[in-house]
Amino acid sequence: MSTTQISGVTVNTQASVYFDGKCVSHGITFPDGTKKSVGVVLPATLTFNTGAPEIMECVAGGCEYKLAGTDAWLKSGPGDKFSIPGNSSFDIRVTEPYHYICHFG
Amino acid sequence: MSTTQISGVTVNTQASVYFDGKCVSHGITFPDGTKKSVGVVLPATLTFNTGAPEIMECVAGGCEYKLAGTDAWLKSGPGDKFSIPGNSSFDIRVTEPYHYICHFG
Repeated sequence: MSTTQISGVTVNTQASVYFDGKCVSHGITFPDGTKKSVGVVLPATLTFNTGAPEIMECVAGGCEYKLAGTDAWLKSGPGDKFSIPGNSSFDIRVTEPYHYICHFG
Repeated sequence: MSTTQISGVTVNTQASVYFDGKCVSHGITFPDGTKKSVGVVLPATLTFNTGAPEIMECVAGGCEYKLAGTDAWLKSGPGDKFSIPGNSSFDIRVTEPYHYICHFG
């Protein structure tokens, strides 16, 4: 079961645009100050770097991802999550738009 | 003064992707049921059709737009708004990402 909506949040009206628009996200802030983002990765193969640890939650579409230091491409579909350590990176391979929630920390 | 954040809303986690990703938006719903969207148009020249009337509010970047039935390309920058009638269309020309809030009705 994927998370289709998030209620009671503040949304940043300006998007973050990465990789010439292959990834677009909008930041959201919860009443307790927690920050997440909702975004989409369009068909591409990209490498993302992390600062804080992240949990990527798929809400629609899907991707394959490969964590730094591993050899395996793993699938992630609606309702699936994967975790990336801080100060690390992951490769992502997308053939249909991958819609996600990014949880930090 | 542009609107940088919108508080107390429900955000749709799945983006709407138009024109192969040249436009990406996330729908938001206010407590009274009012729906808007926050989105970005990447560099491109596109034609958008309206169902309901729309007001496009620029929050960052900028665009030039031309309403159906007019000849003039007009500029819209941060804090500017323009209105499009229902069941109509407008052309938009973007050279730097145009971040917007779309108000309906």
